[in-house]
Amino acid sequence: MNFDGNRVCELLGIRYPIIQAGMVWVSGAKLAAASAEAGILGVVGAGSMKPDLLAQHLQKAKTLTSKQVAVNIPLFYKDASQQIEVALRHGIRIFITSAGNPNTFTSFLKSKGCTVLHVVSNPKFALKAEEAGVDMVIAEGFEAGGHNGVDELTSFCLIPEVKQAIKIPVIAAGGVARGSQIAAAFCLGASGVQIGTRFVATVESSAHENFKQAILESSYNSTELCLKKLTPVRLLKNKFYERVVSLEKEGGTAEELKALLGKGRAKLGMLEGDLEEGELEIGQACSLIRNIPTVSDCIKELLEDYKQCLEALRN
Amino acid sequence: MNFDGNRVCELLGIRYPIIQAGMVWVSGAKLAAASAEAGILGVVGAGSMKPDLLAQHLQKAKTLTSKQVAVNIPLFYKDASQQIEVALRHGIRIFITSAGNPNTFTSFLKSKGCTVLHVVSNPKFALKAEEAGVDMVIAEGFEAGGHNGVDELTSFCLIPEVKQAIKIPVIAAGGVARGSQIAAAFCLGASGVQIGTRFVATVESSAHENFKQAILESSYNSTELCLKKLTPVRLLKNKFYERVVSLEKEGGTAEELKALLGKGRAKLGMLEGDLEEGELEIGQACSLIRNIPTVSDCIKELLEDYKQCLEALRN
Repeated sequence: MNFDGNRVCELLGIRYPIIQAGMVWVSGAKLAAASAEAGILGVVGAGSMKPDLLAQHLQKAKTLTSKQVAVNIPLFYKDASQQIEVALRHGIRIFITSAGNPNTFTSFLKSKGCTVLHVVSNPKFALKAEEAGVDMVIAEGFEAGGHNGVDELTSFCLIPEVKQAIKIPVIAAGGVARGSQIAAAFCLGASGVQIGTRFVATVESSAHENFKQAILESSYNSTELCLKKLTPVRLLKNKFYERVVSLEKEGGTAEELKALLGKGRAKLGMLEGDLEEGELEIGQACSLIRNIPTVSDCIKELLEDYKQCLEALRN
Repeated sequence: MNFDGNRVCELLGIRYPIIQAGMVWVSGAKLAAASAEAGILGVVGAGSMKPDLLAQHLQKAKTLTSKQVAVNIPLFYKDASQQIEVALRHGIRIFITSAGNPNTFTSFLKSKGCTVLHVVSNPKFALKAEEAGVDMVIAEGFEAGGHNGVDELTSFCLIPEVKQAIKIPVIAAGGVARGSQIAAAFCLGASGVQIGTRFVATVESSAHENFKQAILESSYNSTELCLKKLTPVRLLKNKFYERVVSLEKEGGTAEELKALLGKGRAKLGMLEGDLEEGELEIGQACSLIRNIPTVSDCIKELLEDYKQCLEALRN
């Protein structure tokens, strides 16, 4: 598979234009290093880490790969600034920022020689990110797992919208679990893809085995975007989800929903494997996943499927 | 543009694997005939017609084109059976059924030598339609305009899911307003596309000029899927939409929503051009539409964009 001249590959120094998404409780050193070794961008998800834990993961990643890894930092976390310091100190030079204002850290990171990507959910935010000086935007559609934009733009409509709004490269996120979907994203105007859900169900992901199994057993209607009164989040349906939905149906307030959510539910579900009471963040494409390969095999599968898709299209 | 061997073209006797969606108040004889003349499947939308009006449109279509046109019949309408009779009497041999059980009429229509397509919103319904004997399914994603499935599957995830569930051809609907999106749908496993929203803003559509203009002025966040307590429907945001949303936020019941909706709102908005009080059914891709071409020019644009997209992918 040859991606010569692909701008995402050039800007990130990777072989294939694929980013392994930074995900809470799932993407530590092991997943990021395996991704980097396999020729894509490996990303440590700082969203579920205190600065000292992030430091440990970045140190560990260095022992697992000589290739660079990136860090994803949700900007609304109070530790964001400290996490950036830690990452810089550990030699990180690729940052993915999300869930916040791209103006906050972009100039600073660029002054340190970093490459900056920002996650957006609509063309207006994409333009704002471009104006803030980021190198690329990641456009995340309604089908994506975890936190999600309020406009509910699907990848099919979002990617062309963002593409025409800005000049810098667009990376498609949300709904990509197969190589044929990478090809579709390219048709829509993306220069690369960010893949989350597919990598949750790999050997190197830190997701609990129960969570990985739940993905294999998921069906087309296993996820839903909920908690729209707080921050919209796409969840795998379980007992906790049912309680959320029934509170929402009764007209529960944001405060009541916040109380029900409580603290530590994502950790409980995704890392500790409590499938009933945990919050299981996952994308709509989970039902397309039917094995738990190593990251290396997973990427081989994606590229093979991509190749076959392009060949079929040529005929 | 060569679609030799494309099964949708073969089964429907058309040059390009594109179906002009049957839409309430928008797709009468004029739009269907123009579509047929331009080499795609033209469809009269019976959903907003009494049987005698349908008869008039089918008679008129015959005076406008010698090519066959199809009829779209929402099965939950009480006139569905009578509409089928009228259509058969007027020589219609391609039926698109939606919003109901594919078992109700498929055998009967097949016994009359008809080609039957059924609209589905998830892989389970697709399998049911295949088992009922339909020739193809139209898989309609969350981004589509008008009535919509409850599972909220986006085209990006729905098409691969449906493709792997059945053996008959899959036609992608929802979010397709450009040729690059046709190419993307093909990557995802579709053998053809159904396009609605793009054709609303054509010269030959019966949509009111005000409605066509509103599409040209729409933005990425101009639509929303609402009325989920009744049947989910994607609407262009306007005063009526705001009243729906505020009633929903107050916890309004299905009965209250039904009362607010009342009767004739889609006609009021889409045909009569009342942009404030009318119900304006439209897809998320409306913001990608910036001109009102003839159907013939519209299809030329779609095919040119499709061709350019494939060429870019080859490089």
